[in-house]
Amino acid sequence: MKPSHRATSFDVAALAGVSQSAVSRAFSQQSSIAAETRARVLEAARQLDYVPNRIASSLITRRTNIVAVIVGDMANPFYVQALHCIGCALQARGRQILLFTVDRGGSADEAMRRVLQYQVDGVLLTSAQLSMRMTSRSLDRGVPIVLFNRYVPGHDAACVRCDNAHGGGLIAEAFLRGGARRFAMITGDPGATTSQDRVRGFVTRLAEAGLARGDIAEACGHSTYEGGAAAALALLDRQRREWPDALYCINDIMALGAMDVLRMRLGAAIPQDIQVAGFDDIPQAAHLSYQLTTVAQPVEAMVAEALALLHFDRAGQRIERAIDRALPGQLVMRATLRAPSA
Amino acid sequence: MKPSHRATSFDVAALAGVSQSAVSRAFSQQSSIAAETRARVLEAARQLDYVPNRIASSLITRRTNIVAVIVGDMANPFYVQALHCIGCALQARGRQILLFTVDRGGSADEAMRRVLQYQVDGVLLTSAQLSMRMTSRSLDRGVPIVLFNRYVPGHDAACVRCDNAHGGGLIAEAFLRGGARRFAMITGDPGATTSQDRVRGFVTRLAEAGLARGDIAEACGHSTYEGGAAAALALLDRQRREWPDALYCINDIMALGAMDVLRMRLGAAIPQDIQVAGFDDIPQAAHLSYQLTTVAQPVEAMVAEALALLHFDRAGQRIERAIDRALPGQLVMRATLRAPSA
Repeated sequence: MKPSHRATSFDVAALAGVSQSAVSRAFSQQSSIAAETRARVLEAARQLDYVPNRIASSLITRRTNIVAVIVGDMANPFYVQALHCIGCALQARGRQILLFTVDRGGSADEAMRRVLQYQVDGVLLTSAQLSMRMTSRSLDRGVPIVLFNRYVPGHDAACVRCDNAHGGGLIAEAFLRGGARRFAMITGDPGATTSQDRVRGFVTRLAEAGLARGDIAEACGHSTYEGGAAAALALLDRQRREWPDALYCINDIMALGAMDVLRMRLGAAIPQDIQVAGFDDIPQAAHLSYQLTTVAQPVEAMVAEALALLHFDRAGQRIERAIDRALPGQLVMRATLRAPSA
Repeated sequence: MKPSHRATSFDVAALAGVSQSAVSRAFSQQSSIAAETRARVLEAARQLDYVPNRIASSLITRRTNIVAVIVGDMANPFYVQALHCIGCALQARGRQILLFTVDRGGSADEAMRRVLQYQVDGVLLTSAQLSMRMTSRSLDRGVPIVLFNRYVPGHDAACVRCDNAHGGGLIAEAFLRGGARRFAMITGDPGATTSQDRVRGFVTRLAEAGLARGDIAEACGHSTYEGGAAAALALLDRQRREWPDALYCINDIMALGAMDVLRMRLGAAIPQDIQVAGFDDIPQAAHLSYQLTTVAQPVEAMVAEALALLHFDRAGQRIERAIDRALPGQLVMRATLRAPSA
């Protein structure tokens, strides 16, 4: 077994008969270099199995081409979908993901402390809390942060999200068209603006139809399948004299748990006995066993917007703060809502 | 807005009244330094908002503390579960994930070319193809590679996987105990040893019970939910005179698609009309709507084994090649198999 030896740019320069700086320029997309010289360098590199050391060159350019992505909830397929989409979009731009996972709803501050040691070009944060102090620290160092599918009022970081209040209104509207009269909701983390906004849009539309907030039954499902199932049981156990005829879950993963409890434990038919709707449009919402009516988040557009806000092309420039981009979601009608009553 | 300024180790040394090398040692877990001196350095670092630059120090230590993880199929929850588990285990060891995604079943060679530019401490590869040439190139550079849940005969990389043949045998055994007589299988990627081994263990056990391979109906489901649904339709459409009474899906994600088609399209009761089993034990297998009997992969033990094979503590040493670690899976009995016939 031969000892590991990595060819250096000096070896390549010697073999190609050019200067070391020509080797650097041959591997840099921005640099001007004669096509013939570049070809000679690349051939020498191929022969020596040389790859440029991005880590070393980052000390000069201060760009590592690495973007930190902090993910807080991989049990929710929406964030897996988002991560996949972020990965594809970054790779297509020649950038890599440094991935950090934190516990669901946990603080990302410790992850951010690690992130800052790696001189990343930017940070994308999904479904985790980040303190104002860490955010300022990152921005002061010239590392832009974008919150994805989150919004924190008064927070310095830029944020890209679905227009959650608008989406909640779409669901209320669809329930009303389906003839619903008695409503229930399963909410997520009470401290998160995502859950608050989805609830607000829903109850605001119902208020316009004359329904008081106090008449809407609600339980917290903590944004998990198991939590959604438990909340549905709590809201709809057999003892209640009168069931709600429409159940809004503020995300799909809880709606799956609620639907399973409704059908498997409570013997309910959906949508005949009770209509159900979710939010996100995760892949499972389209599965034959659920066919869940929901609001689709425009994930690809949100990712494109988030990457635009990281401003890779304007390194070192002033970072705009406290931007809030809300993109409209779309109602996806499937089989868990009744057809509009005549 | 003040221009971004990052404090250096010189600034910290000056404020703490120590040498720059003392600052380096204060931030290195391996180094010996007086507790009082370390405390002084850390306090100065806190005041100056200094974090050590891992990128710069990696040029000296040749360790970045970064491990590349290449993921090929985030639509299969098993790999999401594995990624989460890998992330937790690496972070607990003070290491970060550089994440690369490739298309399902696609080649990881292009990702590996990028990986090698980042001087990573090791590579974990799940559900993607990697050529022998790229593997050798990585190992020759002293970067160890571990294939996770994959095994390629004659391949130089180390591999950690579930004992798939053994697991297939467990399912066959359980079907036989449940009184099954006519068998069908939904297979995955025909070129992947994972699918081949899960099939082999299954048919070998059935052969011992006197069943010929030719008597077992089979269709390929390409390891997706949609593929599993389509394969189930193809195998079990209403025209067939005699249905199989046991359906083995070589992974859970295809079993979910098959179960949905069986119940929603073909009106079958599970397990009364047909028994179903999967492999992996993804979180959805435990959901109320599926309660799928399956073989649980020992994910945490597999991750621990994979990290052990990356030999972080023996950087620069000889990398052992062609190691194959197969850990036994466990049968998880739920509701899709019949109780043993008397």
